[in-house]
Amino acid sequence: MTTESPYDLCLDKNEANFAPLSPLSLLRRAARVYPDYTSVIYEGVSYTWAETYARCRRLASALARRGIGHKDTVGIIATNIPAIYESHFGVPMIGAVLNTINTRLDPEAIAFILDHGEAKVLMVAAELSDVVAKALTMTSRPKPLVIGIDDNSGGTLLGEIDYESFLAGGDPDFAWSLPKDEWDAIALSYTSGTTGNPKGVVTHHRGAYLNAIGNVVGWTMPAHPVYLWTLPMFHCNGWCFPWTLAAVAGTSVCLRRVSAKNIFDAIADQRVDHFCAAPTVLGFVINARPDERRAFDHQVKVMTAGAAPPAPVLAAMSAEGFKMAHVYGLTEVYGPAAVCAWKREWDDLPQDEQARLMARQGVPYQVQEDVTVMDPVTMIPVPADGQTMGEVFFRGNITMKGYFKNPAATEECFAGGWFHTGDLGVLHPDGYIQLKDRSKDIIISGGENISSIEVEDILYRHPAILEVAVVARPDEKWGETPCAFVTLKAGFDDLTGEDLMAWARDNMARFKVPRTVVFGPLPKTSTGKIQKFHLRARAREL
Amino acid sequence: MTTESPYDLCLDKNEANFAPLSPLSLLRRAARVYPDYTSVIYEGVSYTWAETYARCRRLASALARRGIGHKDTVGIIATNIPAIYESHFGVPMIGAVLNTINTRLDPEAIAFILDHGEAKVLMVAAELSDVVAKALTMTSRPKPLVIGIDDNSGGTLLGEIDYESFLAGGDPDFAWSLPKDEWDAIALSYTSGTTGNPKGVVTHHRGAYLNAIGNVVGWTMPAHPVYLWTLPMFHCNGWCFPWTLAAVAGTSVCLRRVSAKNIFDAIADQRVDHFCAAPTVLGFVINARPDERRAFDHQVKVMTAGAAPPAPVLAAMSAEGFKMAHVYGLTEVYGPAAVCAWKREWDDLPQDEQARLMARQGVPYQVQEDVTVMDPVTMIPVPADGQTMGEVFFRGNITMKGYFKNPAATEECFAGGWFHTGDLGVLHPDGYIQLKDRSKDIIISGGENISSIEVEDILYRHPAILEVAVVARPDEKWGETPCAFVTLKAGFDDLTGEDLMAWARDNMARFKVPRTVVFGPLPKTSTGKIQKFHLRARAREL
Repeated sequence: MTTESPYDLCLDKNEANFAPLSPLSLLRRAARVYPDYTSVIYEGVSYTWAETYARCRRLASALARRGIGHKDTVGIIATNIPAIYESHFGVPMIGAVLNTINTRLDPEAIAFILDHGEAKVLMVAAELSDVVAKALTMTSRPKPLVIGIDDNSGGTLLGEIDYESFLAGGDPDFAWSLPKDEWDAIALSYTSGTTGNPKGVVTHHRGAYLNAIGNVVGWTMPAHPVYLWTLPMFHCNGWCFPWTLAAVAGTSVCLRRVSAKNIFDAIADQRVDHFCAAPTVLGFVINARPDERRAFDHQVKVMTAGAAPPAPVLAAMSAEGFKMAHVYGLTEVYGPAAVCAWKREWDDLPQDEQARLMARQGVPYQVQEDVTVMDPVTMIPVPADGQTMGEVFFRGNITMKGYFKNPAATEECFAGGWFHTGDLGVLHPDGYIQLKDRSKDIIISGGENISSIEVEDILYRHPAILEVAVVARPDEKWGETPCAFVTLKAGFDDLTGEDLMAWARDNMARFKVPRTVVFGPLPKTSTGKIQKFHLRARAREL
Repeated sequence: MTTESPYDLCLDKNEANFAPLSPLSLLRRAARVYPDYTSVIYEGVSYTWAETYARCRRLASALARRGIGHKDTVGIIATNIPAIYESHFGVPMIGAVLNTINTRLDPEAIAFILDHGEAKVLMVAAELSDVVAKALTMTSRPKPLVIGIDDNSGGTLLGEIDYESFLAGGDPDFAWSLPKDEWDAIALSYTSGTTGNPKGVVTHHRGAYLNAIGNVVGWTMPAHPVYLWTLPMFHCNGWCFPWTLAAVAGTSVCLRRVSAKNIFDAIADQRVDHFCAAPTVLGFVINARPDERRAFDHQVKVMTAGAAPPAPVLAAMSAEGFKMAHVYGLTEVYGPAAVCAWKREWDDLPQDEQARLMARQGVPYQVQEDVTVMDPVTMIPVPADGQTMGEVFFRGNITMKGYFKNPAATEECFAGGWFHTGDLGVLHPDGYIQLKDRSKDIIISGGENISSIEVEDILYRHPAILEVAVVARPDEKWGETPCAFVTLKAGFDDLTGEDLMAWARDNMARFKVPRTVVFGPLPKTSTGKIQKFHLRARAREL
């Protein structure tokens, strides 16, 4: 169209001025600058950044010697132990793709992932040997190389070689390289779908690097945080925090089992100052018994996501001395990709009001282009009125490449140039988004739409309620009515459904009050989300 | 080579999962999330992020209406006033390239830049009207559109339209777009060469974005810093801080004149908590008179670069309550690209030792791949012994595209796949680099190499010395001898050269002691660097 500009002449990319973005660069830097700083702690074991870097290079080298390389899938199934941290670097160092597998899956689901993901290697923590052994009998593809990891669980190691011996056969000075293309796959993560087969989310080096840095900027992380792993690293690569911790040369405190006591002990003994946690884990903290608690005198920053935490949970955590940040994302957007960015003018508001504001999902991360709420048919943004419902959409660099071997789902989820989250929400006048229910979580009663999240939010204020989920129960007269499944705190066993409904009538519009209350434990997905589809089924049978 | 991998199938870039990296995204986010927060303050004027965004869009729109667009150069010559901040966004919004011009240049140099850079528009702050008017009579290309900016200096506006009227003709809702390619040029910055014609450094959107974020991570910046502009924005785009401040929604406190009083007033009155400064500006602060000082009760973080600050300057700043960070870079690497990353174990060292460690240039930024010291002929790294001299090299994403219309210089500076800084240095055992002199700054006396920086460093400890520069003076017997040019602090006028030499003999090896001492002001470049080539010429004539 135009004549060539002098800006087009001899100003090209070369080895000096261009490098593919990859979180591997962050590990190399941490090992160079802070070789003696503690990288990973697990029970009696502690590594420095020099050691972690050497172990990751050994892993990469040992895999390469077995013929594993570019675009090969390497699976790992483990709780938060050092090996899974190391796999986040050692596997991509040879251009291979890390497939972390949810430890709570049954053998059928693991077999599906092994077949679909085409793992050539599978690293297995000892406590998962049994379930994986079963899964391996169910696969249809050639068996992967199985490497057993001693995780201090006392379980028997599976596989032909153990992880430490495997590392010992690798070269600690292995000459790994950055990916040729920053768009190359770095990880394959299967979503814990509540129905049907899970989908394999493929992410890339560029996005992993950007969200690693994005977590630092979005959470204003200092250098050398001490970070507690309550969030599983198998869950969306631990929201990219394995890589974030290399960027800031922080310490990973690994935990095989998450409990209130473990969390308080790590805060008091290791001086943990940061952790990420699902709302369920926040519940452990808030509801810890006195003998599980430990005193601590430093601030602990907590990032939470998943289901919107009820306002009372947010308020209780703040009151305990935890500084809360609320983020939102999905595996498809590398974990957190939106944040309820705090505003200093909120500091002076009443705590309830603070919690109400903070329960919103917020605004895009600095490294994500946008998050908004639109009509999914017209792709026109909803009015920023905090009322009009639409679907939540993301776009930007921390959005997956697509679903593995699933072009139809990939095309569908990117239709119109945005990633369709499937979540419903509203846009507030201040530009912050807030999730409302997925369409199936809306209860339609007598023609009125009832937000199950809103009803849950109010019920959580009741002092006896530990956990609650509200779903639709079919009703001849009203179409549907709200049905509450409730777990009570210890010591409140006398509370009846009638008591709760009476309290609810004082605290919400009549048509929103649950007509049915069922007490007992709530079914959850392997990542701790309440499985409402199970509850809906139960409600139908009541 | 291999069969196609499933990772290559239907996992391509699209509008949902890929966006060109550009600092423009950071402004859009700041305006969305913090529309009412203060973006820019200058004398009586204050803007919010919503206003700054609207003004930048007006600028982009008004330029587009004049036919300015993709790959057109837009020049600006101004001190640190709001217009130059806005130009960092408004100009690239239309794909144009921002050419900030050093305000201290003479008409001939400005004319050279206008001709070589091919500016189609030139925005001129009123106080520079005279020099620019002269420059415009010397150019050989078609005259650019000249826009005068009222900077409160009282100067007469140059040009056919004034900046505010120009903005008024633009659309505050202008639909700007990200660059098609993140490798597109964003800025053209002429280096203040001490000899010959300056070279035009071309940088790109990707690098500007990465270093904008890199400053946040490397300096652990909080949200909403109050940042004082003592560093000129025309100098290497203010080290990318115009864009960094959008990333963290900070406030830019603009200053047309830098003085000790202005700095202390801004700290006390505006609660400035961050600024970047050349060592000369640090000198203003340290040597401020009591009537120029103001008390303040918050911490002020100061980033310094350029010449390695002498240890006594670093120590004095720390003692004053300023928290110092020492970075290193050049225009070719977007400003700071290496940082003397602080280590907590240094906290307990004596202050002299802390200053000695911090005077080093350090390690690469998180967003730069590497900085190292190599033999420039063999390109083999020097031993990490803190002794062996070599040339300092950078590589990575915050390295320029190249020199504008200068393929030979571009090729030369990137030879071997690294950017050649021309600076000499050593690599310490801990992996930190330290600059030693450029080869021409080494004094060879009786066959011994004398580091002029080392001699200066020691002389700075003398209580009477405000500024000192040491250069080689030709000598029949010794080849060269050190010659010190010294500016004394007020009240020390009685000090003689002999006094100083006597003191030096007690504090350094005999062969390093200056044989000549000359008192008086030191010549400086427009960016505040001491012009040693002038001093060497004077030393030759002594």
